[in-house]
Amino acid sequence: MNNKLQFDYYIGIDIGGTRTRVARFSDNFKLEKKSVIETPLYEKNPKELLEEISNKIQDLKKSNLKFAIGISAPGPCDTKMGIVKNPPNLPGWGEVRVSEFFKDKFDTHVCLENDANAAALAEYKIGSGKGYKNIVYFTLSTGIGGGIIINGKIYRGFEDSAGEFGHQIVLLNGPKCRCGSKGCLEAVSSGYAISRDALSKTLVRKSGILYEIYKKNGTIKAQDVFLASSQGDDISWKILNKAITYMGIGISNVITVFSPECVVLGGGLTNQEYIIDEIRNFVTTHVKMAPINKIKIVKSSLGDGSSLYGSILNIIELQ
Amino acid sequence: MNNKLQFDYYIGIDIGGTRTRVARFSDNFKLEKKSVIETPLYEKNPKELLEEISNKIQDLKKSNLKFAIGISAPGPCDTKMGIVKNPPNLPGWGEVRVSEFFKDKFDTHVCLENDANAAALAEYKIGSGKGYKNIVYFTLSTGIGGGIIINGKIYRGFEDSAGEFGHQIVLLNGPKCRCGSKGCLEAVSSGYAISRDALSKTLVRKSGILYEIYKKNGTIKAQDVFLASSQGDDISWKILNKAITYMGIGISNVITVFSPECVVLGGGLTNQEYIIDEIRNFVTTHVKMAPINKIKIVKSSLGDGSSLYGSILNIIELQ
Repeated sequence: MNNKLQFDYYIGIDIGGTRTRVARFSDNFKLEKKSVIETPLYEKNPKELLEEISNKIQDLKKSNLKFAIGISAPGPCDTKMGIVKNPPNLPGWGEVRVSEFFKDKFDTHVCLENDANAAALAEYKIGSGKGYKNIVYFTLSTGIGGGIIINGKIYRGFEDSAGEFGHQIVLLNGPKCRCGSKGCLEAVSSGYAISRDALSKTLVRKSGILYEIYKKNGTIKAQDVFLASSQGDDISWKILNKAITYMGIGISNVITVFSPECVVLGGGLTNQEYIIDEIRNFVTTHVKMAPINKIKIVKSSLGDGSSLYGSILNIIELQ
Repeated sequence: MNNKLQFDYYIGIDIGGTRTRVARFSDNFKLEKKSVIETPLYEKNPKELLEEISNKIQDLKKSNLKFAIGISAPGPCDTKMGIVKNPPNLPGWGEVRVSEFFKDKFDTHVCLENDANAAALAEYKIGSGKGYKNIVYFTLSTGIGGGIIINGKIYRGFEDSAGEFGHQIVLLNGPKCRCGSKGCLEAVSSGYAISRDALSKTLVRKSGILYEIYKKNGTIKAQDVFLASSQGDDISWKILNKAITYMGIGISNVITVFSPECVVLGGGLTNQEYIIDEIRNFVTTHVKMAPINKIKIVKSSLGDGSSLYGSILNIIELQ
């Protein structure tokens, strides 16, 4: 990759619901040093989180060298104005002028991107989607999000709102989604949905592996359901089977509409390798109009670092 | 629109399952003269249809003036090579090298486009989608198809297969689709699906308005179901209600994924004006992530001429 810019190094910031990462990258995008902040410590206090990020940047800064700042944050974002807008994943934030804050603080170039778009860009530039022209990226995690790269550029859509793959309706009159609609992919197939279904079924059944987990921890996480399923728990298997089938539908539909050359799957749920195999099986048998046998369905190679990498790779894209 | 090309006029050809249109357009894209061929007269004889089209072109030609030929045809098409590839809507065609045929015949510039893409382009350039940057076009007819315009250009996807909106899966384990999959939007909400459901229900019920139509005509068309519904037939209303609800899902999902500024609805089913109102109501209440109140949902203004216009407008796009 050519770096034709006038910056000596880059600072990347990935604001997440659980963790916020701040890192320094060389002028050719190698990670040099990283700090992690527990985001919930600053819940409902975005300004304090931004101050803490600034402290980390001060520690990472190299004196007398020119740097730019790239930020990725949960959507929705106004990327042109650099504003994070009431993200469901950051409760109590409201609208926060993130770019302006860092511009004022460090008097340098700052750019903001939605985290799923940033991840898609990183996978396209240096990850599993490298070498293709049009790719889509799915994050399958507590929520389900996505990003679209067309001709090597992030496709943002009207008011930065494209790529909300988790909010396709896959089940008419299905479970309520946190977006306010019903039967969205996220409400049926996400880590949150798996955990919700496991909890409600377990509280009725009051026996079995999941109930033991519930008694111990007071809750059931998606990863508990994977574990129970691998130990032969029938209810867990059914919950996962339903979730993965609808994931297959959501991913098939994006392929049918977009016909990308490559689909990159990231997010915590893909740590269960068999999910990717199941999705690949589903789309291969259900997608008929796109050349499905030539379309690559691959796991993210950057893992949970994809948005952080994307935040700085986005700087050169936007110049 | 500027016409900076070296052609004095254009010939547009729109090959359809029912009718094929051949027309002459001025250098500034005004329709001058049009001929219509009944396509089924040449069923399974694509070469004979192409010969008949050539005869029409001979009649339309102006001596000593330079012209180009634009063709729209049912997909799938290889637009680069100018090949129509086993279109389900033209039974018995196989692969036909349409562009080569007319190039050899008239020794001029020829370009081919999928009919839904051509229609989308025409709506973007001179129809209901004029003035927007990113639009999607749905054709709601016997089948359901679509086209995508991004930054004013047709988005074709991998091997020209993008925009197959009718083959999103909207109903898990739903009715078989002619594409080979199950529960596709086309298998649930198209004119074909409405007609199929009406027929199967009527043959069980053996009474009512639809049964009278069936006895008279030996079949039930989608337009019969609209008529019966308007006359208070309860079964017709239920069939249409289901079809339109799933249309709402399919269109909502494309909006959620793409976030276009404008959705243009064309095809025979949109002649029932209330369908557009129903779809608008559905998407307004179900799409939460895109700025749905700012996104225009409008009827095609070019009607069944959109693909024909698109065929010639595509010539200047591709140069």
